[in-house]
Amino acid sequence: MTTAYISEISKYEGQDVTLKGWLYNKRSSGKIKFIILRDGTGLIQAVAVKGEIEDKYFDLIEELTQESSLAVTGTIREDKRSPWGYEMTLKSLEVVHIAEEYPISLKEHGTSFLMDNRHLWLRSEGQRHVLRIRHEIIQSIRQFYYERGFTLIDSPILTPASVEGTSTLFETDYFDGKAYLSQSGQLYLEPAIAAFGKVYCFGPTFRAEKSKTRRHLQEFWMVEPEVAFNDHEDNIKLAEEFVSYIVAWVLEKCGRELDALERDKTKLEKVKAPFGRVTYTDAVERLKKEGIEIEWGDDFGAEHETVIGSWFETPVVIEKYPAKIKPFYMQPDAENPDLVANMDVIAPEGYGEIIGGSQRDHDLERLKKKVIAQGLPLESYEWYLDVRRYGSVPHAGFGLGIERTVAWLSGSKHIRETIPYPRMLYRLYP
Amino acid sequence: MTTAYISEISKYEGQDVTLKGWLYNKRSSGKIKFIILRDGTGLIQAVAVKGEIEDKYFDLIEELTQESSLAVTGTIREDKRSPWGYEMTLKSLEVVHIAEEYPISLKEHGTSFLMDNRHLWLRSEGQRHVLRIRHEIIQSIRQFYYERGFTLIDSPILTPASVEGTSTLFETDYFDGKAYLSQSGQLYLEPAIAAFGKVYCFGPTFRAEKSKTRRHLQEFWMVEPEVAFNDHEDNIKLAEEFVSYIVAWVLEKCGRELDALERDKTKLEKVKAPFGRVTYTDAVERLKKEGIEIEWGDDFGAEHETVIGSWFETPVVIEKYPAKIKPFYMQPDAENPDLVANMDVIAPEGYGEIIGGSQRDHDLERLKKKVIAQGLPLESYEWYLDVRRYGSVPHAGFGLGIERTVAWLSGSKHIRETIPYPRMLYRLYP
Repeated sequence: MTTAYISEISKYEGQDVTLKGWLYNKRSSGKIKFIILRDGTGLIQAVAVKGEIEDKYFDLIEELTQESSLAVTGTIREDKRSPWGYEMTLKSLEVVHIAEEYPISLKEHGTSFLMDNRHLWLRSEGQRHVLRIRHEIIQSIRQFYYERGFTLIDSPILTPASVEGTSTLFETDYFDGKAYLSQSGQLYLEPAIAAFGKVYCFGPTFRAEKSKTRRHLQEFWMVEPEVAFNDHEDNIKLAEEFVSYIVAWVLEKCGRELDALERDKTKLEKVKAPFGRVTYTDAVERLKKEGIEIEWGDDFGAEHETVIGSWFETPVVIEKYPAKIKPFYMQPDAENPDLVANMDVIAPEGYGEIIGGSQRDHDLERLKKKVIAQGLPLESYEWYLDVRRYGSVPHAGFGLGIERTVAWLSGSKHIRETIPYPRMLYRLYP
Repeated sequence: MTTAYISEISKYEGQDVTLKGWLYNKRSSGKIKFIILRDGTGLIQAVAVKGEIEDKYFDLIEELTQESSLAVTGTIREDKRSPWGYEMTLKSLEVVHIAEEYPISLKEHGTSFLMDNRHLWLRSEGQRHVLRIRHEIIQSIRQFYYERGFTLIDSPILTPASVEGTSTLFETDYFDGKAYLSQSGQLYLEPAIAAFGKVYCFGPTFRAEKSKTRRHLQEFWMVEPEVAFNDHEDNIKLAEEFVSYIVAWVLEKCGRELDALERDKTKLEKVKAPFGRVTYTDAVERLKKEGIEIEWGDDFGAEHETVIGSWFETPVVIEKYPAKIKPFYMQPDAENPDLVANMDVIAPEGYGEIIGGSQRDHDLERLKKKVIAQGLPLESYEWYLDVRRYGSVPHAGFGLGIERTVAWLSGSKHIRETIPYPRMLYRLYP
């Protein structure tokens, strides 16, 4: 007997196959019993009619509890009334394991309970859809950079220093010294552009921030491209092309998941380059006119980002922030040295910042001065400064946060559902 | 003027283009000057003939030091004598940055010096080839699991407990408690199979081992598939298919790099499923006959693996180790409960173990007993045991180490060259 997955069931129309999975639901209607089987790739209904199937199998259905594991064998029929397109006429079944009473029922559960049972909650349809969208987003990212000739440069997690200060770093003993968990691969990508031209890294990053919001995780995944000879405009163009590519991929591959999550796809269909664009300075002016409290020189908070996002139907690029609120490695703006050639991309519909990036300062002397001015130890950055000593070139890059992108595209209200096992303040288990 | 990358230069034959990169080398022959330009995607020679190019450009070449960055513009010509297939007739050039005296020359350097300058060493051709092979291996892995319907489940790095004891764990404060850097995603994948059927994770893993060998890194990348309803034989079949796929991909995509590294490709062409196979018990017997010191119940060391690897031209699967030297979660062998249904895959040519895996014990009561017998805290494993409470199924998986696979396929003698920024004992910089 052929063993098949539900996702490929259309290939077996009219044939007998075995499917293996878990009992999602069952019901009875007189002499007919219905089993809904879940195998991780899809759902299917199997129908047993008393008299047409051996009694021992018919009776066995009675014993099945929710989430029991089993193998069902029968004939696959197309069924247009079924939400899954196909049904099975059951011929036999084999019980693998009768589940204990399953703690997650179809009724509402509290968040804390669901998070304590994250390892089981993963089985729920809503969670599965979000994580399938995550899976496709990540595949689209790998494909995007592969097609464009970028070389993957896995940057280290254990690092001696940090890009943006040490207050939010996880620290560990490293033999006779200390190491810190990486917050960004950028410093490691910049030297690599001189070897490979176009590079990217993609891995977990860490923030030991004591913030507990819908948008923060202590451990999250980030993809960061870095390109030699790219300037500020090239950087924005790459970001627009990249985000548009991800969205088009998800629309193509995840139609079923988006529908099941009741995501408004027409909003995603509008995500095409070029995006809306506004300078930091103009955004501050407009926010003030709209009566929102902010002064030039303040950083934007989540509420500001939501308002700015609402000005456009596409994502919006905010560019040229004040240098004094940005890290030392950013290239000064060509026209106004109080500004930097940076850009953030804000997702629409209130999903916040998904990208932050900049052209990098490639002038050795200016960069040295900034490292010293910020009170950073120059000797820790010598290797990073070497990029400017040996064939310095203009270059630019950015980072895209995976979980925020998943939240946006799947329409998840809380970032904790966008990663299989979220790490949050006071949440390290399971 | 069109700006192009060297990798796509064949598209521009007969046309004028601009190429941007770094000076790899230059030489002079009377009225002709040759520049070799490197842009991260390839190398090309540009030729300047006095009288045919403006004098100011001809003279500028004199100023160029090794690794200076520049843009060259000229006409692309096919040239069969050139190792790169094409040459440029130079029309103009622009200096971006004159490099300081470059510390890495073509002469031999000591390993310590090269590792201290890893951020620059990346630019050397040999290092570039190895990391391009790494890049292609990783892309092939993503593609392999994507094509086969596996769902990516990123497992957490910050974990409360460990699979194999705490002595080799990096520890960090996690707000009011402690967290440990993950050594494997397996425990997190097993619950996910009940949600997705076939899953994999792929990320950095950590060992705080005080070992300093050619084969060890403190931080390395591992890919781990886990499949519901797979048994020991299915597990071996998946591993064989997987490794064969990677090797075929690398042979197809990295011919030039393998040749440059003088890798014997005929050896790689023999890597096809099924692989050689030997039980642990038979391997011990044969090692003894060959006069090598080992007793049944000992674990294999690197030298044993090398000898066992030499018995076959393909990789070799060693299966069914003594239960007492393996972790608690492995399924007992069906015929002999002193053995487990595990397997290691050893690469040929002395490159050692690249895969370790097993069928997982899916019997709740037996697993509980083993957790207790090993002195592990049962309450930390309750969530893991839940996989056996709610629809337990036979399942199996394995982990493949990326750096060892890169070392094997690229023919690198030392694992430190198989990752962009290696983390080793006493090596955290750059």
